Amino acid sequence: MVEKAVAKAITALKERDLEMSHLVVAEDDLIDRKRYQLEEQCVELIATQQPLARDLRVIISVLHISVELERMGDYAEGIAKISIMMGNEPPLKPLIDIPRMTEKATDMLRRSLDALVKRDAVAAEKVCYDDDEVDDLYDQVYRELLFFMLQDPRTVQRATYLLWVAHDLERLADRATNIAERVIFLVTGKMVEINVSKY
Amino acid sequence: MVEKAVAKAITALKERDLEMSHLVVAEDDLIDRKRYQLEEQCVELIATQQPLARDLRVIISVLHISVELERMGDYAEGIAKISIMMGNEPPLKPLIDIPRMTEKATDMLRRSLDALVKRDAVAAEKVCYDDDEVDDLYDQVYRELLFFMLQDPRTVQRATYLLWVAHDLERLADRATNIAERVIFLVTGKMVEINVSKY
Repeated sequence: MVEKAVAKAITALKERDLEMSHLVVAEDDLIDRKRYQLEEQCVELIATQQPLARDLRVIISVLHISVELERMGDYAEGIAKISIMMGNEPPLKPLIDIPRMTEKATDMLRRSLDALVKRDAVAAEKVCYDDDEVDDLYDQVYRELLFFMLQDPRTVQRATYLLWVAHDLERLADRATNIAERVIFLVTGKMVEINVSKY
Repeated sequence: MVEKAVAKAITALKERDLEMSHLVVAEDDLIDRKRYQLEEQCVELIATQQPLARDLRVIISVLHISVELERMGDYAEGIAKISIMMGNEPPLKPLIDIPRMTEKATDMLRRSLDALVKRDAVAAEKVCYDDDEVDDLYDQVYRELLFFMLQDPRTVQRATYLLWVAHDLERLADRATNIAERVIFLVTGKMVEINVSKY
């Protein structure tokens, strides 16, 4: 659901499809609800099954990861709202780096969840290291948008919109990294914190 | 610990006290460790005491809130690292709005935890609404820094540093809001999501 929401939000941004943006905003409620359903299920499982410590750790991982996913859904919603604020204005420039960030971030999301399902700490670690690439792309977008603004202050508002979008994507990748770190902890018992974003 | 880390990080930034900044970075490990200790204690409590659903919800809230706190610690660390990157350069401008954001955000943090201890959903709700003030301050800082950059492109790097700091503070307030939302859920069983940041 989150992956689809992000993809839709970015497509709607690119194609200036405001209807699709509104849909992303509306559908975020379903993601929110799913998170609470998951939490309810976890509570019920713990209360009725009295799981052992090992199983408990899996359940607690699910609790944490569902929060990360729900917040990622918020970023998709955020991007959709920015797109709505832009209205019928064309984007400041052709979107190149932003779709690349999207691809990278959703790829990290997918791989972090694969790593969870397969209990694969090595794959999870790779996800964490990829976060740097998204940070670099964000840096690039930031510098480029700044260049536009410095060249022509009338572009400030439109550049700022795209900057927010890039920001949401950067945070999305951060959260994929959080999921991956949680997988590493679940599998190895080792607490790593590879991701300290500078933004 | 988190409140102190944030206060120290900002004081160090203002007073260009690099030693203090390094201390904040080093001490973040203690916050990280505390989070994991808390999680261990929660797991043990659940495994050995078989708490009822009601108590379980409190424990799960603690699990979630400790993650929020730990991440807030990361923002303090992030601010300290930015300060270190700035080296001996003076800040671009006297810091006025950034300390105000800090005060507001740490006030929100304190009140969200008070609301947790007192199980006070009304107080928690007030915290959520205060998030808008921090967002407004961030907007103000953003516009002001942009103005500096547009006036004199040579300020871009130094303005960017301060923008990151303001960003970390904005996210800190977001996380205080997350804690407050969790308190509301714990007390009322109602899931609210007041905080959808636009950044």
